[in-house]
Amino acid sequence: MRKTLSCLLLALVITIIALPAVAGAEEAPVPDPTGASIGTAADVVGATAGAPTKEDLATLSQNEPLAAKLADVVGHNRISINFVWTLVCGFLVMFMQAGFALAETGFTRAKNAGHTMAMNMMVYGIGMLGYWICGFALQMGGVGGVASLGGGQVLANEFSIHLGGHEFGLFGTTGFFLSGVSYDAVVFTLFLFQMVFMDTTATIPTGTMAERWTFKSFVVYGFFISMFVYPLYANWVWGGGWLSCLGKYFALGHGVVDFAGSSVVHMTGGVAALAGGIILGPRLGKYREDGTPNALPGHHIPMAIAGCFILAFGWFGFNAGSTLSGTDLRIGVIATNTMLASAAGAFSSMVYMWTFYGKPDISMVANGLLAGLVAITAPCAFVNSVSAVIIGAIAGVLLCISVFFVERVLKIDDPVGAISVHGVNGAFGLLSVGLFADGSYGDALNGVDGTVRGLFYGDGGQLVAQIVGICTNFVFVFVVMYVFFKVLDRIVPLRVDPEHELEGLDQHEVAVTAYPEFVLQKTHR
Amino acid sequence: MRKTLSCLLLALVITIIALPAVAGAEEAPVPDPTGASIGTAADVVGATAGAPTKEDLATLSQNEPLAAKLADVVGHNRISINFVWTLVCGFLVMFMQAGFALAETGFTRAKNAGHTMAMNMMVYGIGMLGYWICGFALQMGGVGGVASLGGGQVLANEFSIHLGGHEFGLFGTTGFFLSGVSYDAVVFTLFLFQMVFMDTTATIPTGTMAERWTFKSFVVYGFFISMFVYPLYANWVWGGGWLSCLGKYFALGHGVVDFAGSSVVHMTGGVAALAGGIILGPRLGKYREDGTPNALPGHHIPMAIAGCFILAFGWFGFNAGSTLSGTDLRIGVIATNTMLASAAGAFSSMVYMWTFYGKPDISMVANGLLAGLVAITAPCAFVNSVSAVIIGAIAGVLLCISVFFVERVLKIDDPVGAISVHGVNGAFGLLSVGLFADGSYGDALNGVDGTVRGLFYGDGGQLVAQIVGICTNFVFVFVVMYVFFKVLDRIVPLRVDPEHELEGLDQHEVAVTAYPEFVLQKTHR
Amino acid sequence: MRKTLSCLLLALVITIIALPAVAGAEEAPVPDPTGASIGTAADVVGATAGAPTKEDLATLSQNEPLAAKLADVVGHNRISINFVWTLVCGFLVMFMQAGFALAETGFTRAKNAGHTMAMNMMVYGIGMLGYWICGFALQMGGVGGVASLGGGQVLANEFSIHLGGHEFGLFGTTGFFLSGVSYDAVVFTLFLFQMVFMDTTATIPTGTMAERWTFKSFVVYGFFISMFVYPLYANWVWGGGWLSCLGKYFALGHGVVDFAGSSVVHMTGGVAALAGGIILGPRLGKYREDGTPNALPGHHIPMAIAGCFILAFGWFGFNAGSTLSGTDLRIGVIATNTMLASAAGAFSSMVYMWTFYGKPDISMVANGLLAGLVAITAPCAFVNSVSAVIIGAIAGVLLCISVFFVERVLKIDDPVGAISVHGVNGAFGLLSVGLFADGSYGDALNGVDGTVRGLFYGDGGQLVAQIVGICTNFVFVFVVMYVFFKVLDRIVPLRVDPEHELEGLDQHEVAVTAYPEFVLQKTHR
Repeated sequence: MRKTLSCLLLALVITIIALPAVAGAEEAPVPDPTGASIGTAADVVGATAGAPTKEDLATLSQNEPLAAKLADVVGHNRISINFVWTLVCGFLVMFMQAGFALAETGFTRAKNAGHTMAMNMMVYGIGMLGYWICGFALQMGGVGGVASLGGGQVLANEFSIHLGGHEFGLFGTTGFFLSGVSYDAVVFTLFLFQMVFMDTTATIPTGTMAERWTFKSFVVYGFFISMFVYPLYANWVWGGGWLSCLGKYFALGHGVVDFAGSSVVHMTGGVAALAGGIILGPRLGKYREDGTPNALPGHHIPMAIAGCFILAFGWFGFNAGSTLSGTDLRIGVIATNTMLASAAGAFSSMVYMWTFYGKPDISMVANGLLAGLVAITAPCAFVNSVSAVIIGAIAGVLLCISVFFVERVLKIDDPVGAISVHGVNGAFGLLSVGLFADGSYGDALNGVDGTVRGLFYGDGGQLVAQIVGICTNFVFVFVVMYVFFKVLDRIVPLRVDPEHELEGLDQHEVAVTAYPEFVLQKTHR
Repeated sequence: MRKTLSCLLLALVITIIALPAVAGAEEAPVPDPTGASIGTAADVVGATAGAPTKEDLATLSQNEPLAAKLADVVGHNRISINFVWTLVCGFLVMFMQAGFALAETGFTRAKNAGHTMAMNMMVYGIGMLGYWICGFALQMGGVGGVASLGGGQVLANEFSIHLGGHEFGLFGTTGFFLSGVSYDAVVFTLFLFQMVFMDTTATIPTGTMAERWTFKSFVVYGFFISMFVYPLYANWVWGGGWLSCLGKYFALGHGVVDFAGSSVVHMTGGVAALAGGIILGPRLGKYREDGTPNALPGHHIPMAIAGCFILAFGWFGFNAGSTLSGTDLRIGVIATNTMLASAAGAFSSMVYMWTFYGKPDISMVANGLLAGLVAITAPCAFVNSVSAVIIGAIAGVLLCISVFFVERVLKIDDPVGAISVHGVNGAFGLLSVGLFADGSYGDALNGVDGTVRGLFYGDGGQLVAQIVGICTNFVFVFVVMYVFFKVLDRIVPLRVDPEHELEGLDQHEVAVTAYPEFVLQKTHR
Repeated sequence: MRKTLSCLLLALVITIIALPAVAGAEEAPVPDPTGASIGTAADVVGATAGAPTKEDLATLSQNEPLAAKLADVVGHNRISINFVWTLVCGFLVMFMQAGFALAETGFTRAKNAGHTMAMNMMVYGIGMLGYWICGFALQMGGVGGVASLGGGQVLANEFSIHLGGHEFGLFGTTGFFLSGVSYDAVVFTLFLFQMVFMDTTATIPTGTMAERWTFKSFVVYGFFISMFVYPLYANWVWGGGWLSCLGKYFALGHGVVDFAGSSVVHMTGGVAALAGGIILGPRLGKYREDGTPNALPGHHIPMAIAGCFILAFGWFGFNAGSTLSGTDLRIGVIATNTMLASAAGAFSSMVYMWTFYGKPDISMVANGLLAGLVAITAPCAFVNSVSAVIIGAIAGVLLCISVFFVERVLKIDDPVGAISVHGVNGAFGLLSVGLFADGSYGDALNGVDGTVRGLFYGDGGQLVAQIVGICTNFVFVFVVMYVFFKVLDRIVPLRVDPEHELEGLDQHEVAVTAYPEFVLQKTHR
């Protein structure tokens, strides 16, 4: 065990030493670690329809020196509003980690509750360090600037390949350790917001792989997904990479459009969970000899549902915060669409279960709420409220069908339903942009003039882009994670000893007993 | 069961089809779904004492074109601050649903924990859909505009009756499904904030009626209260309806003044809970044959108290957010008053219980904290800190007295004390505006010049208005809900089978077992 | 019991009557309870590098009347952003009380769970009232103004002693009961933010002293620490008191620099916990006859870890909110440093435990996360991200070493590790400013020109100031609290009856049973 850890630490140290060499190739724009020079008169340009233009500032300021000076404060106020919004929303998203911890632990068994909580706690710590070391740089190092935050131009280096006259961005190369030019208030703020999104992805497989995963191999996984897998796909969609250029280059709508991460965050997590779940195999006792599944009910339903509420709370930050702007008043529409889709998801899964299984199974309904949230994450900014309700309602039904399909047909043991909630509905969410986007928002997104429209509003090209995004995500994430888990399993076995699994992982893996004083049913151990 | 559900869905579909016809009668102001044209130079007018007037903008802008253009950005910044504040506070209020879920579940018994959580989760989903269908339109469809958010003028249609030369507003008629003209960033933002308030009302009776309510009839209730009952009273106080006009028409202070909803939200919920509790009857075993009550203690005190903390946290958004404005700096006073009243409520109930019952019963103290919060909700913006402490202290004592009165004299079984916390203290909160408002705030509220003053500061008329509000709320809500529950009980029985009640509702009603692995005492089942 | 309470209430009443006499000595600046005149053109001065100066406003406004009027709104917008930020961050800090409640309760035993929750609830209520009565006035009554909030000048009276030509501030004398001149929107906002910080200090000893502390004496403690102990040290560092003047007077850097309270909040709490833990003695059964400790494991690990997540969530408000300004864009750096230190603390404690004890003990790791947060609290605004990670990593190791040292060498029974988490790492956090501050921030702090630098960046004087702060905190808090607990113990015994301790405190002290339906192991009672 110590050896594994030593290897891991050695690898990290090497990475730490090696990467700044790449970073050394960066140009040197001027970072601003205090933010004192961020948000200036330049940031009033384009703020509103009636705002001064660059020329106005240059010419009119001769006769209006006071107004010119005032413009500086107005621009700073504007950027400050956006900072406050982005940070507060980022805090909310961070809190979702608590929601995942409670939901996953509540939906699994008491004998592993300490272990499940431990994975959720450490995926936050480990993922954050991995993302700080190189994940953020790979994802955002070439994004250019963040207009709403008045800066970020130091993130100017994207590694691209040239193909057919176009540049296809693959990953960024600035921002390792948030050091050098990236010691900048805008970059740190962007880091915080992007980190908590990555963390969401990283924690999703801990649900699917719960109750049988070794903590050692989990630690290695935590670094791997936060340093490499998540950042790459995220770069392609959000960091200026190739999927965001499909519109500009090939007239496929606005390229892949994923407002807050149905695919970048949720589908990535769900597909990684799928790969992990296949390799790890079902929990002991999950399937009978004839292949039919046993129910292994979660041990603490109030805990699980409280976790879902925390997730729904944090999701406001997730979706509405993805404007990175509190002065983009579309935030009201985004937040409301988010909320409505969650209600529709819960309601439709309730009706589905009640109709076909006789009772409104509340653990399915809680997942239906989450399914609605996952599905609306990509389209939340581009659709009206009726579409949001429809998307959420479809997601709730899709969830129910998928959960039974995964368990009974694919025979993959997913204790918390993460593959269905995040994987299947992440894909559906990305697709739904290509169907329901109503052309009211997204002007000039990804360098394409005009607003974002789905098939139902006249742009079939957008739908094609979304399908390309789904396929890319599935193939890239599944193949990489499958190979990773396979290789890792040889070095650090993924699966705990069967006797530890039967006894429960808590003492063996994380040195605690979750409930040392409560008397538990023997039958479930 | 399927039949019931089908009927319900049919009714919904009819409503969905029928309502837009009413909506069709709307005029057509210009909505702005992106918010790009919300927040302009016009919004600097009246922003501060030294702000430019409308005339200044018209005349001075000739010589100061840069300043004129800058004014547009300044106005947009101002509105953006208010959007950010309103949305973040709305998110906090939504999180209170988790607090209710945990408090109610912790204060009830283990065998029904899944069912209690389920009601709390679905009241959010169902209530939101009902409110989206027609509740919001009935409440806010005629409010006119929301100055602090720079828009909302599309909500221009109030149905009124003419009596004695005055118009008495009854309900609004714009905003069904957030469609048509209400696809607007201001309207969506207002919807979000108002929805989470309605949700608080809707969830209150689930505490009083816990452990014996059928999920089927609960679902119907969820639609009914969110679509009709809450919106009507809310319209009368907050939507420009008749109770808000009592000052303008009859010189009763500023009409009914309920800053953040002691009556609109809490008393409505508490009175609905009273009606439901009466009709549903006590839990089996609650009363002995001689009519004296048995204690049926809550099964998880840490869960309940954690829920109360979440409620206190969310309450900052509830009260301070009700300015709908982050540029109204009274928010600091409101938030602090809110906090102080909660401390005083907890402290006074602790002293009361310690003095008269020998020990500081912490479950009563937790409710005392909530009682202080409920009571300060109406007056929070109008009183000083000493009054806030007094109001909170009275509320804490009132809570203790009321809990014993409801249990022992009225013999209504209220497992979580919701009638006392929300009903009694909601009424007291509304009353306390008429006593303690100190004349420092509320200028021109409800179209009446001057600030809001209570009896102790010279305005007896305000107290009369508040009493009218309390009576109206009690009569309207009690009668409607009593009749509703009576009628519903004929169609979909409210009460579960006695044997299900004895066994626990979890498996029978919502298909889960809350704690399948924990060994529970037989004596409490 | 009633006598004790009566004495306490009598003492309070006397204080309430006596203190305004002191307050009567105040001058009379003009307070603004609505905030309508807070945030004006004057507040654009110094807002940015290009902002108008005072002279610009005076002279240029002749020719630019519109710009001059606009400046008023711009200044108000700026102050509003800071109000919104300060309040939202304050709400987050308040929520940390829930985190403490869950963490402390989860890490202690089931038979005392109601009592531990009760202390956490009432320390909020009691502490708030004590702080409102006189704590806030003593701490902040002489702070002068709060530039970022555009006011607070009414807090103008500091009691000082003259020594060697300098004034050494000891405590403030304005703001009792938030009455008189302190009925002001800025003062109320400042009160809210400072109150929740004091509350954090007050709740820390409830962890160390859990499972054996009488509720009566706890109540007296709650008033004492919030009214006197916390406010005095806080005044010296944050309220303009003598520790903040060490730089100005004796060229020791910028005087004691504690950005968000590693010492003011955490070390104070940890040292008070140390004094209390010594006097109270270990829990029955904690130590064997030979002095070796028994493990008394926490009864609910998921609850404890959920509490830690809530703490980490609230900590964003704690640290980044301590700017009292959303327009100081350093907030992005502060929030990110905070987060990174927590990850490093969790990771380093995991590696430490895994290496030296064979397993990644997750309850230690959760405390390691908190240790990182405590340590970064003082330096968060002054260091870069690499230093933040190093500080957090050291904190995590320090935590592990200290926990074993306190338990095995000092033989003090600290059920939750509060002395190590908050005391030891609070001291280390204060020290680390004097080592790692990189000179990028803090210009003119405490009246000293230039930015804050630690030893590694060239200013040994700052390190000396920090050491003076640590020594002062330890001596002052330890002596006062030790004497207080000793004296109190004579009047109101601190320790519960041994038989109550064996049975559990819940029914005896706070009249509840935390888990009446769950069957608990006899061996742990």
